[in-house]
Amino acid sequence: MTNAQKGRSYSCWLGYDPVEDAAARELGQVALRKICLQADGATGECIAAELKRAAQGLFDLEPEMVSRPSEASLVVGVGLAGDQELDEEGFLVQELTPSGSLQIAAKTDRGLLYGVFAFLRELRLGRFLLGKENPAVPLRMLNHWDNLDGSVERGYAGTSIFWDGGGLASDLSRVADYARLLASVGINGISVNNVNVHADETALIGPKLPLVARLADIFRPWGIRIFLSVSYASPVELGGLPTADPLDPQVQNWWAERARAIYSRIPDFGGFVVKADSEHRPGPFTYGRDHAQGANMLARALGPYGGIVVWRCFVYNCTQDWRDYKTDRAKAAYDTFMPLDGKFDSNVVLQIKNGPMDFQIREPVSPLFGGLSHTNQMLELQITQEYTGQQRDLCYLVPMWKEVLDFDTFARGQGSAVKDIVAGKVFSQTYSGIAGVANVGSDPNWTGHTLAQANLYGFARLCWDPNLSAAAIAEEWIQLTFGPNAKVREVILEMLLRSREIYENYTVPLGIGWMVNPGHHYGPNVDGYEYDRWGTYHRADCWAIGVDRTAKGGTGFAGQYHPPNAQMYESRETCPEELLLFFHRAGYKERLRSGKTLIQHIYDSHFAGVEQVEEMIDRWNSLAGLVDPEIFIHVAERLQDQLKNAIEWRDVVNSYFYRKSGIPDERGRTIY
Amino acid sequence: MTNAQKGRSYSCWLGYDPVEDAAARELGQVALRKICLQADGATGECIAAELKRAAQGLFDLEPEMVSRPSEASLVVGVGLAGDQELDEEGFLVQELTPSGSLQIAAKTDRGLLYGVFAFLRELRLGRFLLGKENPAVPLRMLNHWDNLDGSVERGYAGTSIFWDGGGLASDLSRVADYARLLASVGINGISVNNVNVHADETALIGPKLPLVARLADIFRPWGIRIFLSVSYASPVELGGLPTADPLDPQVQNWWAERARAIYSRIPDFGGFVVKADSEHRPGPFTYGRDHAQGANMLARALGPYGGIVVWRCFVYNCTQDWRDYKTDRAKAAYDTFMPLDGKFDSNVVLQIKNGPMDFQIREPVSPLFGGLSHTNQMLELQITQEYTGQQRDLCYLVPMWKEVLDFDTFARGQGSAVKDIVAGKVFSQTYSGIAGVANVGSDPNWTGHTLAQANLYGFARLCWDPNLSAAAIAEEWIQLTFGPNAKVREVILEMLLRSREIYENYTVPLGIGWMVNPGHHYGPNVDGYEYDRWGTYHRADCWAIGVDRTAKGGTGFAGQYHPPNAQMYESRETCPEELLLFFHRAGYKERLRSGKTLIQHIYDSHFAGVEQVEEMIDRWNSLAGLVDPEIFIHVAERLQDQLKNAIEWRDVVNSYFYRKSGIPDERGRTIY
Repeated sequence: MTNAQKGRSYSCWLGYDPVEDAAARELGQVALRKICLQADGATGECIAAELKRAAQGLFDLEPEMVSRPSEASLVVGVGLAGDQELDEEGFLVQELTPSGSLQIAAKTDRGLLYGVFAFLRELRLGRFLLGKENPAVPLRMLNHWDNLDGSVERGYAGTSIFWDGGGLASDLSRVADYARLLASVGINGISVNNVNVHADETALIGPKLPLVARLADIFRPWGIRIFLSVSYASPVELGGLPTADPLDPQVQNWWAERARAIYSRIPDFGGFVVKADSEHRPGPFTYGRDHAQGANMLARALGPYGGIVVWRCFVYNCTQDWRDYKTDRAKAAYDTFMPLDGKFDSNVVLQIKNGPMDFQIREPVSPLFGGLSHTNQMLELQITQEYTGQQRDLCYLVPMWKEVLDFDTFARGQGSAVKDIVAGKVFSQTYSGIAGVANVGSDPNWTGHTLAQANLYGFARLCWDPNLSAAAIAEEWIQLTFGPNAKVREVILEMLLRSREIYENYTVPLGIGWMVNPGHHYGPNVDGYEYDRWGTYHRADCWAIGVDRTAKGGTGFAGQYHPPNAQMYESRETCPEELLLFFHRAGYKERLRSGKTLIQHIYDSHFAGVEQVEEMIDRWNSLAGLVDPEIFIHVAERLQDQLKNAIEWRDVVNSYFYRKSGIPDERGRTIY
Repeated sequence: MTNAQKGRSYSCWLGYDPVEDAAARELGQVALRKICLQADGATGECIAAELKRAAQGLFDLEPEMVSRPSEASLVVGVGLAGDQELDEEGFLVQELTPSGSLQIAAKTDRGLLYGVFAFLRELRLGRFLLGKENPAVPLRMLNHWDNLDGSVERGYAGTSIFWDGGGLASDLSRVADYARLLASVGINGISVNNVNVHADETALIGPKLPLVARLADIFRPWGIRIFLSVSYASPVELGGLPTADPLDPQVQNWWAERARAIYSRIPDFGGFVVKADSEHRPGPFTYGRDHAQGANMLARALGPYGGIVVWRCFVYNCTQDWRDYKTDRAKAAYDTFMPLDGKFDSNVVLQIKNGPMDFQIREPVSPLFGGLSHTNQMLELQITQEYTGQQRDLCYLVPMWKEVLDFDTFARGQGSAVKDIVAGKVFSQTYSGIAGVANVGSDPNWTGHTLAQANLYGFARLCWDPNLSAAAIAEEWIQLTFGPNAKVREVILEMLLRSREIYENYTVPLGIGWMVNPGHHYGPNVDGYEYDRWGTYHRADCWAIGVDRTAKGGTGFAGQYHPPNAQMYESRETCPEELLLFFHRAGYKERLRSGKTLIQHIYDSHFAGVEQVEEMIDRWNSLAGLVDPEIFIHVAERLQDQLKNAIEWRDVVNSYFYRKSGIPDERGRTIY
């Protein structure tokens, strides 16, 4: 694929188009004229290349690389003055007096890399970055659910960029381009295979390890450590042992030997990501061991080399009987992991999905955040839009993630927000962070829907600084991707910021979740999971809908929170209305705070959702001629798909509830 | 697989266990002592081998083969006295005077084959067959939906016995055994590949033709002609032509050349089975041609060699909008094919599914029967239990098929039953018949559920004589399969005869159909097809359920029948109640003839269905020690599966309607 074939969207937010603003242009041309780079090795080369590429693209300038700082307009280096307050990955941009030259200083090459990318970003945004920045969150990681056959579980952007036909993809230049993209927004870890690990992928810690080493070599210069998802049954499946019992010395030795082999090839290997005892994946339960015993065994194998175990908390009974009204899947992760708090080794990190269910368009925050106080924790977000439109529908997820990050758990009283927990500020943690399930594949625009690039960008930016607003991130991304046109910025900004509300409007009301087609999870199916074994029920009948999850009379889930959150959710009056049906059962004729009945709210929001998509289409069409024509057509097509999907959702959901409740729409609109 | 490994159920109804009854034993020993066989060739060899095998197994007798009829106790031959009134496939069994010897006479070797099998069957049943028999139905055919990779579409008995890995299955002795089984009940045609023809199977009329010839060689001695399902797009896919337009001379020539090639290898090739313009299969519609033009073109290619085109009428809009209340899939076949009545060539046969939808547990008879009066017709039945329990649940289908065959269409006034139409007695037809979608696979017992062998047996027996009763066929089959034990006969007979009612009780009420899990079609999913594109809706709301298909106010489907059927279905009062919801929309509180409300009928029948399965289990368990232990355990296991399935159906359907209607069960039983 040539760069021309890749199209404009291939370069994402790193398309270094010429800066047109005269003042900014002069500023850049002055700053990048003579560069003194004091960084060695491969990362140094990346920085040098990036600066040259930017200078050329943005300012039509061929920078002179000089060796003496005093001759430079820009000094980039480790060990310069002023880096004392920096973390390992932080950077400092300052103006040197009296020369007026600029300095980007850091304690590590990685810090420099981030500083340079940040400096260039701000230049492109017409701003002049000065001051110190440290990333808020230590582990800023992507999880790829890619399989070695090239398929991507829950992937909506083509096939894997890493794997094909059981081995590496043929075009690894794409991986290098991806590493650069990720480095530009501060990602520092990546797992490269699906958490559902099959036989082929188990070989990655065995005979296929050289393939991983090859990928690690590509990511290393960009400051990104590689992780692997592993099967807990690897000692059996790969090692031929009769057991994978974590307390069995043979098993322990086997993993220790695997760790040794891995680190001999990949000295900076990050560690393992493990989905154990979850949705039929093997795990320590098979041997009567708990998750701490299971995770610690792996941690002890990796520990000597500095590796970590990322242990997923997505554990629940996936063979529930729908007739069972007592078991509540929402409670499962808390019930499983809280008794183990404090029992995990210091190089184990529990990875916790944002909500207690599974990446629905609206869920409360997992009560494990704030619950676990003696355990390393990571937040798991889903960038790939499994339940949120599959990159056919527009859904900018940053506002939702912001809600999660800003959620105050009250674990240590007011001011114990999730963003502070994952930053390691609330509890004493050796490791903490955020992982995102990647939305990237082999499509020329990486993410299927070009506007879904904003989610990848926004995810990384939030990892760096969760205090950035969703709007600020969107504005950055739009300008870096589409240039400075004000109309373009205004239209796309509005589209992005409203998209989650719109998607929610035409899909699942008031936090109840699911109602999707089983399996692939696109499109409406109100009863799709209702009589099934997945623990995901809305319990709609002709009078009411919702699950009573209160402590008093319900499943007790609300009681898993600290006060005052527990009380807030417990009461129908104080429960945030967008989560009403998650926590409470409500009659169709009950009044919401808007004064509308519940059923009328369902009808109205679904009619509104479709109208809002139609408005989005109009808005987008107003950008004809103002954005790259290929992107314009592409997004217009996706919006048509979205409209079709929205209409289907509206009609199915409205018809379902009309048929069930028998209550007509007050406004007499068409329901089938 | 050795015979021992195959188990007792491998031999089906041809297990020649010793006859124990003394009188019957003497009779057989006398009759089979000296046999004079006057038939040549491969079929003659089959007959001789069968007589010897039976004599040995049944009577421990080694028959003497003699060449002079006067010396024989049994004369079997073509061209003997008394065959004047026989059809090509009929036979005559008579006692010769004064010798007292027996004679089986026929006009053809096939007639002899059928006569010998019938004679042996009756002997084993303790009866002495005398007289003349002609098969009622000319084309008695099985359709296998087998793919060359070995998979079987809608197969529930293992993989294909014909195909594997793109070629023939390794064990073709199994095919020979199958041919003998089919011949024993008079089947005379078989199509050996799926009506959904993919690229691999298209090659069967091209480079892979030798494989078909090999199968034809196996079937030929047993009087069975081989057919192939073909893709209408074969000239494009296989021939490299730019079109498959039936009016294009190139296309016509291509098919003529293919026919020539086929008949040069398989002189008795039966013809083509075609699913065209149906569920995304290619067809003449692509080229603006109708089905008559499409079928006749193929017929003209096959005609010179005596081949026929079996053209399926399963044509409907499979991308219907569920919001569209006017389009009615039930009407589609009639609407498509009635305008073409009389336009098909004399060697085209339209193959019509028994009902207007798709092999549901309860449907009215397709109005094409009795509608088409100038067109060759075949009835298509589904022996494989796609919607009727998938050979995990017991469902003896012969009673259902009897209803279809006995249905009086009134096409020529009273006495125009479907069985007479497919026998060619009502309209002037060159060809007519019955096809059954086979339920056979590589499982050692052929049909997955051993008791499902009764459906294969019963299908063939009905083809031979549709006036046989379901009970008589079941009794034959039980005795031939399980021997003469009266308790065994009584128990299994009751199980078989009640099984369809029981299955209907716990699944879909009153003819509305569907309510199954989409795709694989096992297990309950009331809304599974409700908001989908397949034209299969129940339209349940909180007040009522059912589709108004009357001529007055409904979709008009009822008007496709002749009077008085049209009037019978049109009126809520005269419509058979088991089809109530197929033809009418009814409120949950409406009273049925039983005095029960509709909703209470739904609850009661579902509770009853589960209880009836439990009773069946008890009844079966009473046979411990009386039937082959392997079969006993196998059936007991299937019944446990069935019980689980029945409970799931009961609870999902009852909960669905309780939640929807809000009307409690009068008897206060548990509904979720």
